[in-house]
Amino acid sequence: MLTLSIVGAAGYAGGELLRLVLGHPELQLGQAISTSHAGSPVHACHPNLRGHVRATFEAPDALQACDVLVLAGGHGTHAERIDEYAQLAPRILDLSADFRLRSAEAYEQTYGRPHPKPEWLERFVYGLPELHREQLRGATHVSGVGCNATAMTLALLPLARQGLVERALFDLKVGSSEGGAVSRESSHHPERSGTVRPYATTDHRHLAEVRQALPDSGDVPLSVTAHAIEMVRGVACTAHVFLNEDFSERQLWGVFREHYGAEPFIRLVAAKSGQHRYPEPKLLAGSNHCDIGFAWDAGNRRAVVFSALDNLVKGAAGSAVQSLNLMCGWDEHLGLGFPGLHPN
Amino acid sequence: MLTLSIVGAAGYAGGELLRLVLGHPELQLGQAISTSHAGSPVHACHPNLRGHVRATFEAPDALQACDVLVLAGGHGTHAERIDEYAQLAPRILDLSADFRLRSAEAYEQTYGRPHPKPEWLERFVYGLPELHREQLRGATHVSGVGCNATAMTLALLPLARQGLVERALFDLKVGSSEGGAVSRESSHHPERSGTVRPYATTDHRHLAEVRQALPDSGDVPLSVTAHAIEMVRGVACTAHVFLNEDFSERQLWGVFREHYGAEPFIRLVAAKSGQHRYPEPKLLAGSNHCDIGFAWDAGNRRAVVFSALDNLVKGAAGSAVQSLNLMCGWDEHLGLGFPGLHPN
Amino acid sequence: MLTLSIVGAAGYAGGELLRLVLGHPELQLGQAISTSHAGSPVHACHPNLRGHVRATFEAPDALQACDVLVLAGGHGTHAERIDEYAQLAPRILDLSADFRLRSAEAYEQTYGRPHPKPEWLERFVYGLPELHREQLRGATHVSGVGCNATAMTLALLPLARQGLVERALFDLKVGSSEGGAVSRESSHHPERSGTVRPYATTDHRHLAEVRQALPDSGDVPLSVTAHAIEMVRGVACTAHVFLNEDFSERQLWGVFREHYGAEPFIRLVAAKSGQHRYPEPKLLAGSNHCDIGFAWDAGNRRAVVFSALDNLVKGAAGSAVQSLNLMCGWDEHLGLGFPGLHPN
Amino acid sequence: MLTLSIVGAAGYAGGELLRLVLGHPELQLGQAISTSHAGSPVHACHPNLRGHVRATFEAPDALQACDVLVLAGGHGTHAERIDEYAQLAPRILDLSADFRLRSAEAYEQTYGRPHPKPEWLERFVYGLPELHREQLRGATHVSGVGCNATAMTLALLPLARQGLVERALFDLKVGSSEGGAVSRESSHHPERSGTVRPYATTDHRHLAEVRQALPDSGDVPLSVTAHAIEMVRGVACTAHVFLNEDFSERQLWGVFREHYGAEPFIRLVAAKSGQHRYPEPKLLAGSNHCDIGFAWDAGNRRAVVFSALDNLVKGAAGSAVQSLNLMCGWDEHLGLGFPGLHPN
Repeated sequence: MLTLSIVGAAGYAGGELLRLVLGHPELQLGQAISTSHAGSPVHACHPNLRGHVRATFEAPDALQACDVLVLAGGHGTHAERIDEYAQLAPRILDLSADFRLRSAEAYEQTYGRPHPKPEWLERFVYGLPELHREQLRGATHVSGVGCNATAMTLALLPLARQGLVERALFDLKVGSSEGGAVSRESSHHPERSGTVRPYATTDHRHLAEVRQALPDSGDVPLSVTAHAIEMVRGVACTAHVFLNEDFSERQLWGVFREHYGAEPFIRLVAAKSGQHRYPEPKLLAGSNHCDIGFAWDAGNRRAVVFSALDNLVKGAAGSAVQSLNLMCGWDEHLGLGFPGLHPN
Repeated sequence: MLTLSIVGAAGYAGGELLRLVLGHPELQLGQAISTSHAGSPVHACHPNLRGHVRATFEAPDALQACDVLVLAGGHGTHAERIDEYAQLAPRILDLSADFRLRSAEAYEQTYGRPHPKPEWLERFVYGLPELHREQLRGATHVSGVGCNATAMTLALLPLARQGLVERALFDLKVGSSEGGAVSRESSHHPERSGTVRPYATTDHRHLAEVRQALPDSGDVPLSVTAHAIEMVRGVACTAHVFLNEDFSERQLWGVFREHYGAEPFIRLVAAKSGQHRYPEPKLLAGSNHCDIGFAWDAGNRRAVVFSALDNLVKGAAGSAVQSLNLMCGWDEHLGLGFPGLHPN
Repeated sequence: MLTLSIVGAAGYAGGELLRLVLGHPELQLGQAISTSHAGSPVHACHPNLRGHVRATFEAPDALQACDVLVLAGGHGTHAERIDEYAQLAPRILDLSADFRLRSAEAYEQTYGRPHPKPEWLERFVYGLPELHREQLRGATHVSGVGCNATAMTLALLPLARQGLVERALFDLKVGSSEGGAVSRESSHHPERSGTVRPYATTDHRHLAEVRQALPDSGDVPLSVTAHAIEMVRGVACTAHVFLNEDFSERQLWGVFREHYGAEPFIRLVAAKSGQHRYPEPKLLAGSNHCDIGFAWDAGNRRAVVFSALDNLVKGAAGSAVQSLNLMCGWDEHLGLGFPGLHPN
Repeated sequence: MLTLSIVGAAGYAGGELLRLVLGHPELQLGQAISTSHAGSPVHACHPNLRGHVRATFEAPDALQACDVLVLAGGHGTHAERIDEYAQLAPRILDLSADFRLRSAEAYEQTYGRPHPKPEWLERFVYGLPELHREQLRGATHVSGVGCNATAMTLALLPLARQGLVERALFDLKVGSSEGGAVSRESSHHPERSGTVRPYATTDHRHLAEVRQALPDSGDVPLSVTAHAIEMVRGVACTAHVFLNEDFSERQLWGVFREHYGAEPFIRLVAAKSGQHRYPEPKLLAGSNHCDIGFAWDAGNRRAVVFSALDNLVKGAAGSAVQSLNLMCGWDEHLGLGFPGLHPN
């Protein structure tokens, strides 16, 4: 068994990773590091884990060598210390946005500051198995994925790889856990509850990840608008994809089946009838699935592609574990068997 | 004071109309007609009105003459008896879809059956004051509006009237009260709660109303996808409007202010900062406002227009009362003063 | 018309009072005072009021003389300046807890500090019309009410006044707006959403108000446990009242009808059948009603009394306006006509 | 591996059991029987299981022999055929209420009809391991548990076994999945959403199970009131337990630790500080835990005991699997490792 330690373990992605590590047959928990909660029991922040883990959060200084180190802290907080971390662990997964983009230029454009360790960018593999499965096998440094980016990329990729996309527009509906574990004015329950609140109305940082994932990222106009809705976990992405040729629902099935038919965590959901004929994020809480469905709007040459996932699992900790399974040569499903709940 | 009677008074739109009539200084309630609830007190269906109204639902046969008759039943149920109703009341408002479209051909295309009384179509005015204020003054036969149609039309109209629209795509997020007062499998709480469920994925009947409202309806490609989300009342429409020329946020302000600056129930909400800088339907429960906001996505020549309203008020009973105020020559605000609640 | 100014106008109770004042035929808004939001337009904090009020929050120093002054700030913030406020306005309503208790001793016991202006305590009338209607007529200094206290008092009072109560236990279920407009860890949406979180498990400050309201407060053992549940507005109180003699549902009807039959804002809701046969707070959002229902558990000599209200209206701003109507000799309903929404 | 078949597999408890069976290392799914959905794929009713199970629902007639048969249908539907089922399977778990009570008299009193197979009552063990662990080891016929009964029993049992209880009152807050998978008027989302709706106001059938579980059931007065609140999964029970002697929080800890300290699925949650210091059902969705907390109200000699669980897991399918693990001599944790989600 490998020992896995987590820096930034008190946050929501950190907590989800803890849950997955505890259920993973090849992993044991090393240290749970947290600046703000050092000294508290892990279950004080992650009450679902009460009785499942006896660890206490430790301060960053206490970090020791381990087999796998996961950096789950906020964006921009770990990159500067990457050399130091690399000394402590032969395998690093950084869930933050720091090593997702391959180009220092794209990073600066997206995040508004120069990358502190640009020499590290090319050493990292972007941790989305559906995109880089072969590169992930045996890799030692892997980035996390943006939760919204994952929903957008997985919805668009099959059509983009076929060169079919004339224009794509992502309309996102997201849950409150995307904002992290720290309360703020916009997460105040009386305000956040039941709302449909537009944000990132004309651009979203995660588009840079989507563009990087596409075969000819420069050529396809992408636009995005996000909405915070009543939901804790979950991203629902409606990708309105205008194609450059006539198509049909049957052809959509063909394209998506070809790309995703063998994927262990993608399910195609596009039934003709029944209640659950399209993806719905609420079924996926806790699961590593990304459900994808579609419909064909012939009159507008528009493929409406729906993707749904749990932002903390497939959009963060779950993709990381799936990547780690590939890094270590294990069965890709290990530790990721939870199917989600219904009703929920 | 005029006497107003309602056929189909036990449904949600009927109940909302009852609430508005009870608070209207120029109206008094005549009869509340319901096939399914005849004999029950009105508050059995509309418990908020307990103590505010002592009426009992009466059977359709009991309908008597009145000054204003509102048909609030389901689509296709009243059109055949329109001649009979016209004998009983000099003013008729039909909230159903039966008299919204001016063309029998468009009706048949949209609703899949020939219109039973096509000769009546041209006698009705479409009851959206923002569109037909002058025609509504003194009118005697007025149709209701589609709730989603209203959100789409009001979002698109100003730009369409300026001839600026190259393509428009409506991404709708709607509450469960849109489905009416009768329970069904899809409204079962464990299934409906917390979901983001796509429906009307490539077309929506209400598009016919939107097309009819536009100056050159045939020329602009319109597409739509709707999503049932966790919300009881409310429609949030995100209109992604691709323009045929370069523009700016300032110019958007100009267009919307010009069109809506004098509208009594449209508020422009597009602040630079603050929590509530775009429209949010939850603030509008019970209110006749339609809030409209926008952002400019220069890179895609995309105006992102947000409209939000209460489907039972501005999307149904409220627009009807506003139209009735115009029909009767009253102040357009009468009975519609409730501003909505915050927090809610 | 009287001019009413509000100190602490940016909070939730302040916002609700603003809404009520704007719809009140005998009141006009003077100043909206806020320390934290001075200089901002009122609708920045109360977005429902956009277009309904053009005022800007002013700093405390700017407060001028007015006919009615409402102190809507937090507990303990205004009492020290009460003499100063009394110079500015002939009528004062203090919504905080500062002047609710008549005894300085009870205040100190409940709030853990000596009252800064004990000499003022007896000049205030507790602002619950169902309790002190006659004293409120013509009164000049009136306190607000605790929202949970109101739900408890109104549930228990009729039985207590009859001397029937052996023991009463209040199990409260409350919405998140009770915590006020400032975000904190416990109001963080991912944590607060969907929870059933016990708090005030063995005591609640508002019990002091309930005890004061009862005829022989010392004699009846009262206990309380509160739960934060998924709801923004609303208090649902289940009063489990063990009686000292055999009783019946019919007798319960008798007692409650006798006490509340003439009350303008209390509705008895205890039907034998139907969906809405007991009080439900969600119907009451925005309304000044307190709905009260009951059932008789013969085997345990237990009257189960349900009370439901909107904590920001009947539990705060609405009771204040109702009291003000009495203070000024106006119709008790003025400004309080909104019946609530269904569905909601 | 043993083969387990389910009759009534399309319902919510059936679906939850399917999920647990699929993750259980010693079980394989035999048949999923459903009268109403025969012929449909299992994932049509249980969309979370898409890709996890390829089975199709079969008609009752098709039921074949199996190692374990679970009857998950509604109350009163299977009892008459129990002899027939007993021929097909050496082990039977009946999740319905049919074999929960040991006395035919109590059954008739509670369910209003004579038991169709009273001779079978004593052959069944009540399937709550915390109550009957030793009897369950090697048992062949086991009943399910009432979800609310489980919450009440587990809250009260430790104090009752010590003979400390003078009177207990259960105030229940429950989610909508308790009503099952079939939609009805009361489960209509616009009505059910956000409500606090009292039901079973003075009695609840599950009290019979609680009484049966207590050492001297006749002596302790029990009362109950239930409330449907905004929640899909989950029961929160607040047991207000008046004791017959003085006590302390420390003594409560003693009693509960003694009774439950070794229980694999009961966690004591009664912290002095922190957000999650008492049980909350939302953390437990999907988990077999029952969390129990308490506080001591000295002035009223009242122990406030909080229990929370997932009605479909610990309140139904999870307790059944836990019982089956005992019946088969397996580790009690098998298949029940999911810890729940946070945030959720």
